[in-house]
Amino acid sequence: MGHLKTFRDLAGSTFTPVGKRKKSLSHWDNFKTVSWRKDAQSDYDEHTSVVMQDTKFAQVKHELMSWAIPAMTGFCTATSGALVEKSVEWFGAYRLGYCPGNYLYTTPENCPNWHAYEEHSWHGYIMFIAFTSLWATISATLTWAFAPLSRGSGIPEIKTVLGGFTFPEVLAGNTLVIKIIGLSLSVGAGLSCGKEGPLVHIACCWSNFWAKFSARYRDNEAKQRELLSCACAAGVAVAFGAPLGGVLFSLEEASTIFPTRTMLRAFFAASCAAMTLSWWNLSGNGKLTMFNEPFANPPHFAEYPVFIMLGIVGGCIGASFVHFNIMVMKARAPGTPFRKRCHIILEVFCIAFLTGVTSYSLLWTRVLSNTTIRAMFHDCRDATVDEHTYLLDICDDGEPVLTLKFCLLIALAGFLRYVQMIFTFGTGCAAGLFIPALLIGSCLGRIAGIGAYLFNAQWPFTPIGYIVHPGMYAMLGAAGVLGGVCRVTISLVVIMFELTGGLQLIVPFMIVCTLAKWVGDYFTIGIYDYIILVRRYPFLHEPDEVTYNTTAEDLMDEGVFCLHPALHTMTFLDGTAGTLDGLIDFFKNAKYGGFPLTQSTTDPTFLGYVHTDVISKVLDREKLAPFSNGSASVAFLDFMADEEKAQMSAEELRKVIDLSKYVDETVMTAVAKTPAVQLQSIFRNLGVRLILIRNKGNLVGIITKKAFIDHLEELHNPENSMMGTVKSSGGLQEALLPT
Amino acid sequence: MGHLKTFRDLAGSTFTPVGKRKKSLSHWDNFKTVSWRKDAQSDYDEHTSVVMQDTKFAQVKHELMSWAIPAMTGFCTATSGALVEKSVEWFGAYRLGYCPGNYLYTTPENCPNWHAYEEHSWHGYIMFIAFTSLWATISATLTWAFAPLSRGSGIPEIKTVLGGFTFPEVLAGNTLVIKIIGLSLSVGAGLSCGKEGPLVHIACCWSNFWAKFSARYRDNEAKQRELLSCACAAGVAVAFGAPLGGVLFSLEEASTIFPTRTMLRAFFAASCAAMTLSWWNLSGNGKLTMFNEPFANPPHFAEYPVFIMLGIVGGCIGASFVHFNIMVMKARAPGTPFRKRCHIILEVFCIAFLTGVTSYSLLWTRVLSNTTIRAMFHDCRDATVDEHTYLLDICDDGEPVLTLKFCLLIALAGFLRYVQMIFTFGTGCAAGLFIPALLIGSCLGRIAGIGAYLFNAQWPFTPIGYIVHPGMYAMLGAAGVLGGVCRVTISLVVIMFELTGGLQLIVPFMIVCTLAKWVGDYFTIGIYDYIILVRRYPFLHEPDEVTYNTTAEDLMDEGVFCLHPALHTMTFLDGTAGTLDGLIDFFKNAKYGGFPLTQSTTDPTFLGYVHTDVISKVLDREKLAPFSNGSASVAFLDFMADEEKAQMSAEELRKVIDLSKYVDETVMTAVAKTPAVQLQSIFRNLGVRLILIRNKGNLVGIITKKAFIDHLEELHNPENSMMGTVKSSGGLQEALLPT
Repeated sequence: MGHLKTFRDLAGSTFTPVGKRKKSLSHWDNFKTVSWRKDAQSDYDEHTSVVMQDTKFAQVKHELMSWAIPAMTGFCTATSGALVEKSVEWFGAYRLGYCPGNYLYTTPENCPNWHAYEEHSWHGYIMFIAFTSLWATISATLTWAFAPLSRGSGIPEIKTVLGGFTFPEVLAGNTLVIKIIGLSLSVGAGLSCGKEGPLVHIACCWSNFWAKFSARYRDNEAKQRELLSCACAAGVAVAFGAPLGGVLFSLEEASTIFPTRTMLRAFFAASCAAMTLSWWNLSGNGKLTMFNEPFANPPHFAEYPVFIMLGIVGGCIGASFVHFNIMVMKARAPGTPFRKRCHIILEVFCIAFLTGVTSYSLLWTRVLSNTTIRAMFHDCRDATVDEHTYLLDICDDGEPVLTLKFCLLIALAGFLRYVQMIFTFGTGCAAGLFIPALLIGSCLGRIAGIGAYLFNAQWPFTPIGYIVHPGMYAMLGAAGVLGGVCRVTISLVVIMFELTGGLQLIVPFMIVCTLAKWVGDYFTIGIYDYIILVRRYPFLHEPDEVTYNTTAEDLMDEGVFCLHPALHTMTFLDGTAGTLDGLIDFFKNAKYGGFPLTQSTTDPTFLGYVHTDVISKVLDREKLAPFSNGSASVAFLDFMADEEKAQMSAEELRKVIDLSKYVDETVMTAVAKTPAVQLQSIFRNLGVRLILIRNKGNLVGIITKKAFIDHLEELHNPENSMMGTVKSSGGLQEALLPT
Repeated sequence: MGHLKTFRDLAGSTFTPVGKRKKSLSHWDNFKTVSWRKDAQSDYDEHTSVVMQDTKFAQVKHELMSWAIPAMTGFCTATSGALVEKSVEWFGAYRLGYCPGNYLYTTPENCPNWHAYEEHSWHGYIMFIAFTSLWATISATLTWAFAPLSRGSGIPEIKTVLGGFTFPEVLAGNTLVIKIIGLSLSVGAGLSCGKEGPLVHIACCWSNFWAKFSARYRDNEAKQRELLSCACAAGVAVAFGAPLGGVLFSLEEASTIFPTRTMLRAFFAASCAAMTLSWWNLSGNGKLTMFNEPFANPPHFAEYPVFIMLGIVGGCIGASFVHFNIMVMKARAPGTPFRKRCHIILEVFCIAFLTGVTSYSLLWTRVLSNTTIRAMFHDCRDATVDEHTYLLDICDDGEPVLTLKFCLLIALAGFLRYVQMIFTFGTGCAAGLFIPALLIGSCLGRIAGIGAYLFNAQWPFTPIGYIVHPGMYAMLGAAGVLGGVCRVTISLVVIMFELTGGLQLIVPFMIVCTLAKWVGDYFTIGIYDYIILVRRYPFLHEPDEVTYNTTAEDLMDEGVFCLHPALHTMTFLDGTAGTLDGLIDFFKNAKYGGFPLTQSTTDPTFLGYVHTDVISKVLDREKLAPFSNGSASVAFLDFMADEEKAQMSAEELRKVIDLSKYVDETVMTAVAKTPAVQLQSIFRNLGVRLILIRNKGNLVGIITKKAFIDHLEELHNPENSMMGTVKSSGGLQEALLPT
């Protein structure tokens, strides 16, 4: 259909920052936007070429890779997870004692001559603080020195990557190795942090590692996103022993684009991970569930008001955590006065030291968080469960302890962990927040459960013979606080009941999670989205009010560099004759991913879009071709129709390189009146990289995904924008100026 | 940005079918395409107007409605489900006996003087056949007479509606009432059918009913789709007692567009449904799970090969069912020789009669399918479960029966139900296929389990002391066959383990469901998608090979009726002066949902799109305005810019009706080279109704969603297309011809 003409005067490459709203997005220079649309087409082209080759082996390999990589990711993640689990046990044990003779044993049960520090007065306390600080400091040092991006949970970074931006360091090999070691150390140190979020990050690193072995995935960013979605599922499957919850977490929280075929592969990756994990058999009984505590009977209706309260309070606690944690995060961001005075390793040391000082005296905070959570969920009436010796005081002769002192102690434990978590999450070592959130919630829930138990004993609100289980309330409280922090709903319900085996609690879980999300959303946005905002990662959020009131006209950059298809000899600005090499240089050094093609300097009729990487490759190939005149003084580039070719001499024609088929005519366009919500939906659902704005047939502006995100953020927080706006006259500019 | 001019010469409205590939899509005339984009904007506009009104009550009501309707849907669906359950028990019991004195009692347990027919020779058999035929025939008659669309499962229809087409009869009140009654009768008759799919349909009808009470939802088709997605979740929640599975079923199988806010509401609807159901307490113990049979320990790795086999065989059985059922469906479609000779009620009677004849002699087919499935899943070692007297022979003194005779009997039962299901599903009464598929699979699995048990006893492949549970294999077999029929994965896993409480079986369930889907997909597409194809509902499937090789050029209709914004007096074809009334008539009688606006007869520059319904409403309002000249001979319509207005006299201006703000300039456009896969993605993910094809600034064609679906179907099955293609010269046509 198009009547594309030959390329225009090619000369120097002078760029000036122009455009009405043209802004410096240089802080996002290392993020490249992924185009799903383009990558899907190139994957199909490769698929076709493989089918054409017709060697059965190549075809099978091609197909198999999309299953083998998720499987390997699942296997490696589960193995890493098992390794982390064992290391955490080991590091954690050393804070309290050791086994002379065999230093690998970690509990008094499997080591007859276990040497516990606490036997000696003060000695235990000092050793506890010392080891806590030591492990955490090593973790922070490794992170700082070798892989700064392995700190924190990694989920905000993964969300950004899955949202369609490249962020290579996040998935690099050093990040993977340091994250595994650092995570073992920081969790083993007994900091108020968990290994769940980081395991998702580790899974994604593994996926990125394995993707390098497949030609299909190596160079295709959109296809890599599919693998990463699968990896997220595997990560959660390993973290919680919840394969189904993993798939749903990937769908609900992590991924932006999640087609059915990805779901099947995520499913497969999670299954592989879960099977590997049950093969490693960490719990010793082959079960995956971390805190297995099934309740045979569903809760009574009269208990629902308490559940509703847990959801609301959980949402409030979650939102307050988000608020304070973000405050802390802003205060210690790079460039702040605090950061300039205090090195990140010193900060971690101080946090660890204070954690050690505050945690030792209380049984519930001294042990690792997992043990505490398991105790909180415990029902006491189930004689088959063997309790860790530390935690026997949760039960009293088969009955849950109900004293006020006990309640105050666990409230204190929960509060301590809450304060610790505010400072720990986001500091300079690998640390997730699922486990501390569950711990805080389980303390809250247990107290509510004890209250309900006592109330029921005094003024029965349930039928005779019905027993109130404080452990059940602890589970619901845990779900509430975690929901309040992360704002996930369906995946959290599934994770919680895979984690606890609480099939009878699905409806209460649903109520608690929904309420926690509502209440939390009333105060703040979710922690991961907030971190993405604070760290200024490019991420396209859900549409809101602003996107309805804004149109493309308000968002577009009007200063656009264009190419034209006119046929001329190529000369550079300095008057020297242009060469193919010069043109290759121009495209290779181009600051932009591509240039729109318009009719001519005076006629802005829009013809298509030229991707620099595509043209660079083609020109490189042309240079190697036998008839190449790479160093000749004249070269023609051809976007022209046949009728024009007919007018040229054979000599001229020989020098024409036909580039017309590399012009992308199908690039997305919209008119200036298009509401932002529609653009948002195009960017998010179609996975395109840019939208060109046209008026009738003429090009009038451009909106890239990055610029769109930046403009929206500016509209949301006008004072928040760090980016300088360069005012200029606007209009279409020449990408290659004629002499 | 746009420089839209005044409306053009308005005269008669002669339409001729033109266009290169313009086809008759009249069989889809009663399906109207929903535009999510347009409806989202109008919902936002209404939201804004409510906020502007500033009465707190209106705002709260406006917000509350989006939660109240899902809640009411959940409540009503659960109540309907409870009613159906009780009715099925009652109708089912009458086939075998009755309780003299109290005709409401349905089992020998609660009726001391239960009178069973089978005590008398032949009498029982005849009564069984008679009641089976009677109930089924009544069901078919009601369906035929009052609500033909209440037959079958209703899920293909719901998928079509959720895919973005209106299909009013499917959700009407008569369909709801007849579906509830007919479902009770056909399931109670003991046909090889279940109540699960139809309950989803019932839930959607309820949602449609309640939506009528809200101004926000009544007229907004896109918003109604959100409610229907929630209703699907509620339907499955009631059908299986699986609220979480319901949300996932809605997400994976039913819905096309499923944003996060819908997920939360679906969650809420499913919770309400589940709570209502547990309040009705049908199982008597407050539990929701239908076939609760928890296994405390996870299966051993050595058993996985058998699970894999179950997945593969399940997929094959599922695919063969789909194949045969579709064969039968095609043979009895309206208009076929069979249908002409055999009335639909007669057909149901015959199926019911033969079902009665074949089912009575075998215990496993005589009772209702639910009871059989429960027995198949039963572990025998669990003494707490009280077995229905009929089914004691599945256990022998606390051990599962392992004889060859038993295996042959249940194999026969499964085969009978399989054959019956092929004919029953899709016949003239309400009938779902989940339960029969589960039954067939559970028979298969139980046999495999018995085989594994015996093999293990002879040649142990598991550790000493490990017990092989045939009931566990039955669950996995059930999941396999159901997966093979429906091709759902993640939601089926969740449904299965909510249904059975088999938390330890998640990974095996995942493996079986994934394999069943793979194997099934190798042979046929899923049953619901196949029915959509056979019944020729408009539905946009996932993209495939064809969509990559086709471009917009191959799919577009080139015969386009256009409007132009030129300013003239309005005259009709017959020479009479045009009136506002005439124009209103034109728009009201228009065959199309809208017309593109191009510059003039000779200049095809594309300006925008005019929606007939919007313009009709505006013109109606203008007519009622005080200055209206509805019967005057001259009226002006204005799409023009200010500079043109300045040239007009005051008298002329008074007669101008400004319609420019009702022109949709932001309608989606694409170039002719755009690959179909991109169009597919625009239709599916952005929820638009049509895409206009432009070449530079000029309009060259149009692709509506219906035409796109039709063209794709034609490309897939060239011989299958019933629609006639009208060849013509193509090009832009005038919607309103000047005299």
